[in-house]
Amino acid sequence: MILRMILLLVTVFTTSFALAEVKGEEVSYKSGETTMKGYLVTDDAFTGKRPGVLVVHEWWGHNAYARKRADMLAKLGYTALAVDMYGDGKTADHPKDAGAFSAAVKNNLPEARARFEAALELLKKQPTVDQKKIAAIGYCFGGGIVLEMAREGVELNAVASFHGSLGTTHRAMPGVIKVQRVLIANGAADKFIKPEDVAGLTGELAASGVAFEFLNLPGALHSFTNPDADMLGKKFGMPIAYNAAADRKSWEAMKAMFAETFK
Amino acid sequence: MILRMILLLVTVFTTSFALAEVKGEEVSYKSGETTMKGYLVTDDAFTGKRPGVLVVHEWWGHNAYARKRADMLAKLGYTALAVDMYGDGKTADHPKDAGAFSAAVKNNLPEARARFEAALELLKKQPTVDQKKIAAIGYCFGGGIVLEMAREGVELNAVASFHGSLGTTHRAMPGVIKVQRVLIANGAADKFIKPEDVAGLTGELAASGVAFEFLNLPGALHSFTNPDADMLGKKFGMPIAYNAAADRKSWEAMKAMFAETFK
Repeated sequence: MILRMILLLVTVFTTSFALAEVKGEEVSYKSGETTMKGYLVTDDAFTGKRPGVLVVHEWWGHNAYARKRADMLAKLGYTALAVDMYGDGKTADHPKDAGAFSAAVKNNLPEARARFEAALELLKKQPTVDQKKIAAIGYCFGGGIVLEMAREGVELNAVASFHGSLGTTHRAMPGVIKVQRVLIANGAADKFIKPEDVAGLTGELAASGVAFEFLNLPGALHSFTNPDADMLGKKFGMPIAYNAAADRKSWEAMKAMFAETFK
Repeated sequence: MILRMILLLVTVFTTSFALAEVKGEEVSYKSGETTMKGYLVTDDAFTGKRPGVLVVHEWWGHNAYARKRADMLAKLGYTALAVDMYGDGKTADHPKDAGAFSAAVKNNLPEARARFEAALELLKKQPTVDQKKIAAIGYCFGGGIVLEMAREGVELNAVASFHGSLGTTHRAMPGVIKVQRVLIANGAADKFIKPEDVAGLTGELAASGVAFEFLNLPGALHSFTNPDADMLGKKFGMPIAYNAAADRKSWEAMKAMFAETFK
């Protein structure tokens, strides 16, 4: 009898684990005439409406790394959409292409905003998403994009930039930023970051009274959250590297910010 | 027999608790001709050499609040010295006096440095202190002082500023700052902080490659760590207030920074 009860419990237990799974699917959406290829993911272990999080990719484009972060967010109880900022799911294998793709978007801010907002609308339409609880995170190029969207006054509850570009051609005037919470996770040893951009960003956020955390993480180079950075750094002779401590610390800071924002 | 064993265990338990206590004492030390009155504290629950932490008071002077923070640090396993930057343990009851006392020190940086270093030497001499592991924290005026000491190139492992002054007449040139880790806990609603000083500080730290955390804490006014701020704010019509969430978050960030720095 006891054995039978244990077996029954084990069965129930494993079945409910089997039912609760991260469900990701490729999605197509339009921004103007361009078709964007994103990745939408939720975890069945959570029920009902939940906050939604956009994930903006590195300069390489919408790839497995962005999807991995979206999966991680789903497991935390969010509905995540890894967006496509380049169109047609275009990705780059070489820094030269990556630089060209990212520059084309960064230098056309109205188009960047249109693409971002197309993804935002798609995310908000999802039945699992609480439309009033939306955040955006981004890596490298994508970190720069979420900060630009904050400067543009796009309504988001929170944004997080991981080794993102901090420069801009237009610092936000006080009062323009609607985002309530900002996390900037930056490598203290990042060779691509100019101190004047650190100053410019913190100054504009402070002037708008935005609650933010700027983490200048010890010893971290550019791309510190991406385990592929070591290989890519060697391959292309770039000063980028994975840094486990910085990755962990910045992810925990994001989790804490989301928990406080969406409580 | 069992009862006797329980009683014995309870006795051993309470005795060892009774032995482990925070031991604070008033100490006098000299800076030039001036006698400074500090407060040195350790917790007997910890043995051997441990990191030392200087605590620099608010503009009110060396008072019970600075000592409370020193006691809290002792309980965390540090030897703490609440310093005296005004001389003779002088304190102010009115903002007018506090402003005059703090300005006299801030406007005479060589004297401020001499007083700070006199306390630093005293701390390093303590038998419970590991001379190679020294940090400094400060509140309000004291937060400004620990940042100025970092700019001066004073050798400390870490500094933390809580609602400290961020302005300075001399931003640090790259390479001058020796401090490895800096925490700046700032109220996002602090009326005394200028955005350009936030920019200036983060810019100079980034330029020196210093690992730092700048927390711009949501809704927090000036003096957010001090429970007396509510009463003082009312009494003198100042925009200052205690903020439990900001107090907790900033203290935890300091603990984490110290744990990483002194591991």
